[in-house]
Amino acid sequence: MCRWMAWLGQPLLVEELLFEAQHGIVDQSLHARMGAEPTNGDGFGLGWYGTGAGPAVYRSVSPAWADANLRDLAAHIESQLFVAHVRAAIGSAVQQTNCHPFRHGRWLFVHNGFIAGFDILRRDLMLAVDPALFAEVQGSTDTEVVFHLALTFGLKEDPIRALEMTVGLVEEAAGHHGIAGAVQASFGVSDGASLWAVRYATEGRARSLFASGDVDAVRSLHPDNPRLQRLSPDDRLIVSEPFSDLPGVWREIPEATAVTVRRGGVLEERPFHPRPIASAVDRTAPSSVPDA
Amino acid sequence: MCRWMAWLGQPLLVEELLFEAQHGIVDQSLHARMGAEPTNGDGFGLGWYGTGAGPAVYRSVSPAWADANLRDLAAHIESQLFVAHVRAAIGSAVQQTNCHPFRHGRWLFVHNGFIAGFDILRRDLMLAVDPALFAEVQGSTDTEVVFHLALTFGLKEDPIRALEMTVGLVEEAAGHHGIAGAVQASFGVSDGASLWAVRYATEGRARSLFASGDVDAVRSLHPDNPRLQRLSPDDRLIVSEPFSDLPGVWREIPEATAVTVRRGGVLEERPFHPRPIASAVDRTAPSSVPDA
Amino acid sequence: MCRWMAWLGQPLLVEELLFEAQHGIVDQSLHARMGAEPTNGDGFGLGWYGTGAGPAVYRSVSPAWADANLRDLAAHIESQLFVAHVRAAIGSAVQQTNCHPFRHGRWLFVHNGFIAGFDILRRDLMLAVDPALFAEVQGSTDTEVVFHLALTFGLKEDPIRALEMTVGLVEEAAGHHGIAGAVQASFGVSDGASLWAVRYATEGRARSLFASGDVDAVRSLHPDNPRLQRLSPDDRLIVSEPFSDLPGVWREIPEATAVTVRRGGVLEERPFHPRPIASAVDRTAPSSVPDA
Amino acid sequence: MCRWMAWLGQPLLVEELLFEAQHGIVDQSLHARMGAEPTNGDGFGLGWYGTGAGPAVYRSVSPAWADANLRDLAAHIESQLFVAHVRAAIGSAVQQTNCHPFRHGRWLFVHNGFIAGFDILRRDLMLAVDPALFAEVQGSTDTEVVFHLALTFGLKEDPIRALEMTVGLVEEAAGHHGIAGAVQASFGVSDGASLWAVRYATEGRARSLFASGDVDAVRSLHPDNPRLQRLSPDDRLIVSEPFSDLPGVWREIPEATAVTVRRGGVLEERPFHPRPIASAVDRTAPSSVPDA
Repeated sequence: MCRWMAWLGQPLLVEELLFEAQHGIVDQSLHARMGAEPTNGDGFGLGWYGTGAGPAVYRSVSPAWADANLRDLAAHIESQLFVAHVRAAIGSAVQQTNCHPFRHGRWLFVHNGFIAGFDILRRDLMLAVDPALFAEVQGSTDTEVVFHLALTFGLKEDPIRALEMTVGLVEEAAGHHGIAGAVQASFGVSDGASLWAVRYATEGRARSLFASGDVDAVRSLHPDNPRLQRLSPDDRLIVSEPFSDLPGVWREIPEATAVTVRRGGVLEERPFHPRPIASAVDRTAPSSVPDA
Repeated sequence: MCRWMAWLGQPLLVEELLFEAQHGIVDQSLHARMGAEPTNGDGFGLGWYGTGAGPAVYRSVSPAWADANLRDLAAHIESQLFVAHVRAAIGSAVQQTNCHPFRHGRWLFVHNGFIAGFDILRRDLMLAVDPALFAEVQGSTDTEVVFHLALTFGLKEDPIRALEMTVGLVEEAAGHHGIAGAVQASFGVSDGASLWAVRYATEGRARSLFASGDVDAVRSLHPDNPRLQRLSPDDRLIVSEPFSDLPGVWREIPEATAVTVRRGGVLEERPFHPRPIASAVDRTAPSSVPDA
Repeated sequence: MCRWMAWLGQPLLVEELLFEAQHGIVDQSLHARMGAEPTNGDGFGLGWYGTGAGPAVYRSVSPAWADANLRDLAAHIESQLFVAHVRAAIGSAVQQTNCHPFRHGRWLFVHNGFIAGFDILRRDLMLAVDPALFAEVQGSTDTEVVFHLALTFGLKEDPIRALEMTVGLVEEAAGHHGIAGAVQASFGVSDGASLWAVRYATEGRARSLFASGDVDAVRSLHPDNPRLQRLSPDDRLIVSEPFSDLPGVWREIPEATAVTVRRGGVLEERPFHPRPIASAVDRTAPSSVPDA
Repeated sequence: MCRWMAWLGQPLLVEELLFEAQHGIVDQSLHARMGAEPTNGDGFGLGWYGTGAGPAVYRSVSPAWADANLRDLAAHIESQLFVAHVRAAIGSAVQQTNCHPFRHGRWLFVHNGFIAGFDILRRDLMLAVDPALFAEVQGSTDTEVVFHLALTFGLKEDPIRALEMTVGLVEEAAGHHGIAGAVQASFGVSDGASLWAVRYATEGRARSLFASGDVDAVRSLHPDNPRLQRLSPDDRLIVSEPFSDLPGVWREIPEATAVTVRRGGVLEERPFHPRPIASAVDRTAPSSVPDA
């Protein structure tokens, strides 16, 4: 379990949403309310688009609530599009290369959830990653492999379709190994211009995911914040857990749904259907372990 | 470039060799003299056999010279067999899972050197790892993959032979990709009873490797240290770089040579010959990336 | 708020109490149940007496639940007397020098609680520390200053009396500045032979503190653990929060009480009365700043 | 020994000077050439003025050469005035609160050098800090105390004069304790509008300090860098060790000299004379410890 948030809108100091929002993402690192795990203290990451080429990423193994640098950066970085993630490790090491967001070129990727039986599936899934991308996988999380599968399946052309193929592949591989409930996820993706988010679970209820309903919703988070009172209809927040408890502010994204947020506050919703990839994992290939 | 050392002999406080020896391994983290890179500040590791089941490992991304915990542990841990490693990262991340020694059951593994073109070879080499061991690879170094290849090739039965097969496989894979000078290495291995060390380079001069010549050699390191003056012929040190500059103390292990150190101070030497593994990497297997 | 535990008894692998006890101290780092703060993820420390001179200390800024080294050390270190602490920072930085236990010679010190208004009192309290000890204060916590005050007031001769004088001084300084509820504490102290623990609050209810009631209590924690079934009447645990919920196992230490645990399982209890220190800080003494 | 640099001029991506300059400050963290200590791997810090209120500070205990976040931040932060520091610890702990730059309101402070016998002087010097600033000292370095002394002596009104008083006080305190060679320093100070730098040693040769001589000097560092070719006479660099070896580029700041750099590239030089502070520490003032 983890928590994440994404902002697309007018330029904001990152701290406005990370630290100053009621029950914001940093507060959720210590006291999350929804889902199985209230503490997300196994590192965090912040990715943003702004000055310089491509997205910047700051990742740390410290709990977000205790990281003095994060507080400072958030107070001095302004961005129109940023993504933050707090991590609760389930099995893999607490290290920077396991912290989200993951990055490839202009792309950022975050995930709340897990691949069931990842230890068993890891080799099959790594094999399905484009060999040209293989060496780019630097950590040991399921998420980083999922991201590289999605890149393999055309994330840059159609992020939702690529994630549908990725989930299809994972479910297929899991089925082959007799693993139930393969995918549990909310995913977030960005290329610096748009945001995509997916809520999906192979079985049962998926990780929660919410979008800010409209400008009034976000404004009401901070009645006394002049900056936020200047919000326009172009601004949109996606969060795995609402920042405040105000009823009526947040719009829950349904199960098995993908949303696209574009500049101008446009939010499009569509069903998310995993696509089976019959040949993605060649199970008949001889093991490469030598006979010798 | 890294540096490592291994002790097999009477029980010693670890600090005697880590901190109190002249130009010991921690001093080498800051001021190494041999080889290309004088600073080995990208983390370190200590593995030891003693109280508790199997080897203990303490690894940190701090430079060894600055780690307060290492100094304390070294002053309070006594062992008959321990291995220490200081790291100079060349490309892969500075993270605990990339620090040596690597461990599998009772086995510890350290490496000074590199696999040339590892980014290119990584996928082929990972594919050759026993699938049952694949998910155990938690970091992103060449060394961890080499260790798991050696486990795949029977490290537990015959460590030198398994490393000969591993190096053979790496050289073969490198040749396939047109990469020259595939392996540059001194390796260290232990199961808690014996030590094995290998010095080998595909091309050119291999990383340096030395064994303590005899008891008098080690005694002369610490003329004023009563504990070391009690050394017996059962004690043996292997180091990638001599601890002191005293002439006559250290015996250089020749190129392309493997040594075995057994209890009682026994040191056996034999040639190290990579063994080609014709079928280890199935280069004709279809890529597993889906056509869809 | 923090949590701590101390063991005095037969030699135990540290992991038996840190990781294998139900609701042990590491579990409490993530899910404490008593007191204000359920998460104690701002570093931890382990101090133990065993091989080597004086106590060893391993401290880290990682949350205890996520530290791979702690798990390894706990599985390979055996001790008759050890102290563990998990920290919830309230104001001061998350850094090793702020992690408990603090050490001076053979002495270890841990604290759960706080000095109210420490920012205001810090200078006065630092001034009251023996000038010869001043430079030894390396961090910025209230606890480290309290420890050095206690050393100033004779901790080595009479730990409880020294803590009574320390608390008296702090309450006096707080009164002078109009600060209410100066001290909130459970303290733990050891010299490697005995353990001392204090439960005290200037106002209101003090931090919880418990002692294992008798051998049967500890045995019942681990009915299936052969090592613990071998416990003798010589073994004693002090904890800030019980390890399991079994009724009847733990004996709550009353408010304003100090206990002394000696080898042989002896537990002595006495009232704890802060001692006003009219002369503790000799304000007329010439400052050591030069006369120019 | 440490190394530092400061930029005042047109907005630059921080990486242009940290990573892309020949023998820049990050390279100096691994391979410094001047002074006693070639490795400055005990943490680093970056302070910059730009978006958001006051200066931002990013500090880490990682060696600068290995910190993935520093590389990312440097590539995405643009500033007209920034300061970077790489640390070689001499005695005090490797922790963020000991990393430079230190900050107070709009002010940043860096130091290369040391206070001799700081352990002995620390209490006297801390006593001389304005009590209102005392609790702000969070680490254990001599530099942080020097900074707070300078704040005590009017840094905000006249930085050079305040540093002259500070050095005077330190030399006086050292003399009182019989400590020779009290101060060894290059200091750097900024308020976000101007830069001040001091080169001074009580005895012997002071730490090196250089200013970029003129625009052509800086341009010649990067003949192929279009951004730097656009440098104007308004740009100025101060460095403790030159970035490249090109003769004629750098102007050495003489011993016992203070320089002021103002917007527009103005560089003023004046002698630096420590001022004895007979009254700096009012030893007759009543201590604030309560009367009981």
